[in-house]
Formats: sequence, C-alpha cells, structure tokens
Amino acid sequence: MNNFTFQNPTKLIFGSGTIAKLTKEIPLDKKIMITFGSGSVKQNGVYEQVKEALKGHNAIEFWGIEPNPTVETLRKAVAIGKEQGIDFLLAVGGGSVLDGTKLISSAIPFNGDAWELVLNPLLIKYMIPLASVLTLPATGSEMNRGAVISNHAIHEKRAFYSSHPQFSILDPLVTFSLPEYQVACGIADTFVHVVEQYLTTPGQSLLMDRWSESILQTLVEIAPKIKADPHNYDLMSQFMLCATMALNGFTAMGVTQDWATHMIGHEITALHGLTHGHTLAIILPGTMSIMKNQKWDKILQLGERVFKILNGDEALRVEQTIIETEQFFRSLGLETKLHEVGIGEETILKIKNRFLKEETVLGEAQNIDGNITEQILRQVL
Amino acid sequence: MNNFTFQNPTKLIFGSGTIAKLTKEIPLDKKIMITFGSGSVKQNGVYEQVKEALKGHNAIEFWGIEPNPTVETLRKAVAIGKEQGIDFLLAVGGGSVLDGTKLISSAIPFNGDAWELVLNPLLIKYMIPLASVLTLPATGSEMNRGAVISNHAIHEKRAFYSSHPQFSILDPLVTFSLPEYQVACGIADTFVHVVEQYLTTPGQSLLMDRWSESILQTLVEIAPKIKADPHNYDLMSQFMLCATMALNGFTAMGVTQDWATHMIGHEITALHGLTHGHTLAIILPGTMSIMKNQKWDKILQLGERVFKILNGDEALRVEQTIIETEQFFRSLGLETKLHEVGIGEETILKIKNRFLKEETVLGEAQNIDGNITEQILRQVL
Repeated sequence: MNNFTFQNPTKLIFGSGTIAKLTKEIPLDKKIMITFGSGSVKQNGVYEQVKEALKGHNAIEFWGIEPNPTVETLRKAVAIGKEQGIDFLLAVGGGSVLDGTKLISSAIPFNGDAWELVLNPLLIKYMIPLASVLTLPATGSEMNRGAVISNHAIHEKRAFYSSHPQFSILDPLVTFSLPEYQVACGIADTFVHVVEQYLTTPGQSLLMDRWSESILQTLVEIAPKIKADPHNYDLMSQFMLCATMALNGFTAMGVTQDWATHMIGHEITALHGLTHGHTLAIILPGTMSIMKNQKWDKILQLGERVFKILNGDEALRVEQTIIETEQFFRSLGLETKLHEVGIGEETILKIKNRFLKEETVLGEAQNIDGNITEQILRQVL
Repeated sequence: MNNFTFQNPTKLIFGSGTIAKLTKEIPLDKKIMITFGSGSVKQNGVYEQVKEALKGHNAIEFWGIEPNPTVETLRKAVAIGKEQGIDFLLAVGGGSVLDGTKLISSAIPFNGDAWELVLNPLLIKYMIPLASVLTLPATGSEMNRGAVISNHAIHEKRAFYSSHPQFSILDPLVTFSLPEYQVACGIADTFVHVVEQYLTTPGQSLLMDRWSESILQTLVEIAPKIKADPHNYDLMSQFMLCATMALNGFTAMGVTQDWATHMIGHEITALHGLTHGHTLAIILPGTMSIMKNQKWDKILQLGERVFKILNGDEALRVEQTIIETEQFFRSLGLETKLHEVGIGEETILKIKNRFLKEETVLGEAQNIDGNITEQILRQVL
C-alpha cells in the first residue's frame, strides 16, 4: 500500500427532519450568509425549514449560484460578504452551491480577486467556516475540500481546494422533488467518482478496492429501483449515503487515482453546458476502451465483482465490462454518445488542441495527452 | 436507514517511515507527556524513532501502562501531568496505552479522581489534546473516542468515551516485532469489532453492510498469509488499515449495533486477564448460536458473502456459518472454548450473577440478560 495521510473532519447529520438541527449547529453570535441556487428550495420546503431553524440567528441571503458556478457570480457574494462582515457561510443546495460557497469562504478574507485563489491556492491564508444543507446527492462536495469553479469570460472550468464543511445536513426527503434527469446525473457522477479512485492498479489496498466496489454494487442494485420508485425514502437514503461516501477520501487511502474522465468532462461542460454527471457517463466508456491495456486487470475485477462477468476469456470479459458500464448509464436514461447530445468533431478538436497547447497530461500514469484524449472522444462520438 | 450523526476528525498518517512526521505534527510550545507500555518499544526501534523526531520538543516520559490499563496506574500519570503542566499527550503503544492515555487526557484538567470520569463522563469538561504512534493493530482506539479502563481494586472493566486522537501515526513496519499470539488476537479483535456493528438486521444500510463485509473478507483473505509470512509489509499494511477502519465509525452509519460479545468478553478479562481479542474469539460463536433466531438473516448474509456458504437449507447454512466463524479463529491459532484456557463453571456463574444483580441487558435488542449470558457461555464451555 502507498503511504497516505487522511483527514476528514466534516460532521455528517443524516436523516429525515435533520434540517431543524441547524439551530444548535451554528453559534448565535455568527453573522451568516446563506447561499442558494435558483430557487427550487422555495418549492420543495427546504427554504422554510432553514428559515425556521435559523429564527433568531443573524443571517442574510445570497441567491443565484448557478450550475457550474462562475467566478462572475461568486464575486458578487464576496463583495457583500466583505461589506457585511460575514463570518459563517451556509450553503443550501447541490454541489454547485456548495462549490461556489467554498470559493466565497476563501475569497471574503482575501485581499484580491477570487479567481487568483483558483489559480493559486497557496494564496489562501484564512477561510470563513462553512456548512451545508445538501439538496442533490451527486458531487460529494458536502464532505470534501474540493470545488469546481468556472470562469465564464475565458471559458475555463478549474478544480479548486478549500476547506471541508464544518457540518453537512443530509435529509433524504429533500431529494423527492428532484427531476429524474438530475437523479440520473447524480448516480452517474457518484459511480464515476468511485471509478476514478478505483480503476487503476489492483491490490494496492484490498480494503479500498472492496469499499469502492461496495458503492458500485449498491448503485447497480438501487438505480433501477429508484427509477421505478423515486419517492422511496429508504432507497434515496441509500443513494444519498453512497454519493457522500464516493468522494470523501474514504475509498482513496493508499491507492493511486485517475481523474482523466473528469478532466475531459469538465471541458465538455465548459464548452456546451452539459450537466457534469452526464458528461462522465459519456466519456467513461471511452476512457475504459482506449486505456484498457493499462487498466486491464482492474477492468476484469470490476466486471467480476460489480457486474458478475465471470465467463469467457479475458479480452471478452474486458469488452463486456465496458459494455455493461455504458449500459448502466443508459439504464439511468442518459445518452452515452456525443452525437446524441449534439456534440461533434469541432469540440473534439478544440479539446485536443487545448490539451496539446497546455501540455496537459491526465490519468494515473499521466500519459493521456491531447492525442489520446482525441481517441477517447472519438470512441464515444 | 436510521438517522445518524457521524464525525471523525482524527488525522491518519499511514505508511513506512512516518514516525518522523511527529516533528511537525506537535507544536514546539507544547509540554508533552509521552506514555508507554512495558518497554517493547525499546526493543523494536520505535522508542528511538520517537525520541529522534521529538528532539527539541519539551517532553517527559511515563512508563508502565499495562494491558487492560488500570485506573490505579493511570492516576500516577495524572498526578505527574497536573504537577508538570502537561498540555499534550502522545501515546506510543497499542490499544491499552491509547485507552489509558484517553483517561489521562480527561483527568489531568479534572478536579477529582479519574474513576469518577469513567463512571460519569458528563463530568468531563475539558480534555488535553492527545495523539498516538500505534504499535499494535487491534483495538481501533487510534481513530475513535472509546477506551476501556479497568479498576483493579473492585475487579471492574468499563467502557469510557473521551476525545478522538488529533492524529495517529500507523507505520506497518512496527508490527514486525509483534508475537504471533498478539497478531492473532488483533485479527480476532478487528473481526469482532466489525461483527458487532454488522450482525444485527440486514439491509438497514446496504453500503454499511458491504463495507463491513469488505473488512471481514479482507481479514479472511490475509490472515493465513500473515501467519505464513508475518514480516510482509504489504500484508501487515492491509491488516493495519482494516483494524483502524473496523472501529472508527465508518461502518456504523445508520445501523443498529450489538456489542454483547464485547461486554461478556470484558468480564472474562477482568476475572482472568485473558487477552481481549482472545475472549472475543471464544464468545462470538456462542453469541451467534444462542441468538441465531434473532440474527438469522444476517448470519445467512455473512455466510454467503464472507465465507461463500451458498448450498443447503437455511438452518444448515446458519450452522455452517457459525462453524466457519469459529474455524477462522482457530486458524489464527486461538483456542475457542473456555475450558481450553482454564475457565469453567465458577466464572460462568459469577458473570451471570453479576449481570442479574446489576440488571445488565445487552445486544441490539437489549434482551441478553444474565440468564442468556449463561447460555452463551455454556455454549462455548
């Protein structure tokens, strides 16, 4: 096993009715900024529950953090936060609201522009404490340090690392109002988060391999049931726990990681606005196909342990595992080819050329350059 | 899934050569008490590595925390800690040194006797920060709040809850000097920690079930290899990670727990001094047998997923799973009957009567009283 350091201090408050616990979790002397997305929380009752729990607290609201949060929007929140002396941030929403709030938390105490922090996290000296009420299981942002921030002006989407939320409240009931497409993208996102930490070299950590497979097995088990019965509390609680555990470091101890599929997916979202989880569902089968020799043994293990592919020679089982992976995404109702979502040749060349120009190399072996990225994208054209 | 709250802030520093990281992990302005067991760390090089890393730090040493640490010994450390103004504790040893140090950390700032804190944790108002260098994978104490403290004068052994270690350093190399019996007991302890959180009701959390099974599967896979090759770094690192993950809350989210085997085992240790992990190896098959109707479905699941018991009717598979569990412990080299370790009728009655007198009830359904405990113990006589 590789040496590693692990720490995740986020307090997870999980279950029905837990939004009311906000009252005691945030000290009364804090000046809170509550951050929101577009307003769906006003339809599903989450907004009222949050307001009720924070009666008597000193809180202002910031609305309008969009999917794939942009630095342009976040700068506005930062300006208000500086002006009003905000010293606690509560993100109420999905991964985008959370990600955006992570940048706000670093940028309020920073004497410069927020985008500088995305480009150079070493500039972060202090962060305002943040917490969350999660409304969409998908990104894992509720229990990790990561965020992805877009810059609209220059069409860029970049990973950014801030601090863990102090606490995150996960009430599976809030997922009942989600559109089917968002649930599908959330399941795909969760699946690929695990795969990025898993589909490299077998046996680095026997336990981490099995913990990753456990999440994948659970997703494969519950996904069709959720499609049939999306307002089933127990099923949605199983999914919500999987989504958080898929990207909180618990499956990453002592193992190498990939993340090529994510980095290519971010390009697609930056150029076309396609939902993050959907980009992953399209690209992962391509990454698996083109990198199959390097990932051979682990693809076999994935096939055997998650999809129960036990028969046939190795080459056949590898192919079958890639097909089953794609089929899993299609079973969620997601298209898995670029042309199905209106993306073609031009985008492939744009991404290829950008990676070549910036000398980008991706993957666990850092050998996926612009040319291999082109092959991956052509595979799923 | 049941509602739950989870938080585990311990920083895990894992891998070969990591003891040297102590230098930077403990601030230079701290007055440290380093706590030790009997002195085995002077034979295996751990002591020298710790001293080297803490050159320039202000540290005193406290030696002699025994297996099943007694409040009698710990009081001495508390007195020295108060006198010397200790404000950081570093436990260097196995679970006993860690457990004992947890009580020291609560008792130094407390204006009364340490045993009062064991009896009434609400009296704990402040705890001195503690960290560890772990030398024996077994108890999980390096990444949880729990401890077990004995009172020699009154022959009692009680659970106690303090704070998580700030950090724990796990270098698998330090396990190479462990006697085979201690490794066997550590594996048994790890196995039963998982079972206590798992062998209740199926399906409460699909993911937690699978994460528990992952640890058990890994132990079943590596135990015979470790017996054959105990100085294999990779094997011992797999075991060390399993031991920590078995009792840090990661497999306990949203599920009910048992702990009857542990509570009965503590009685055996209190009366006879038998090593904790060994008591569990004896008692667990008894608990499974006597409580099999209540645990029926989960025993079947354990048999299927961990021991690959797939054939025969349910009753046969339940019996076979209990036999395989006992066989697993015997394969470690541990006796699994009370008479094999010189324990008989008299002890059974003593424990029964104490539980009846104190109206003790154990297990996930709180239905294991003194009489059922007697049945469990007679089953493994």
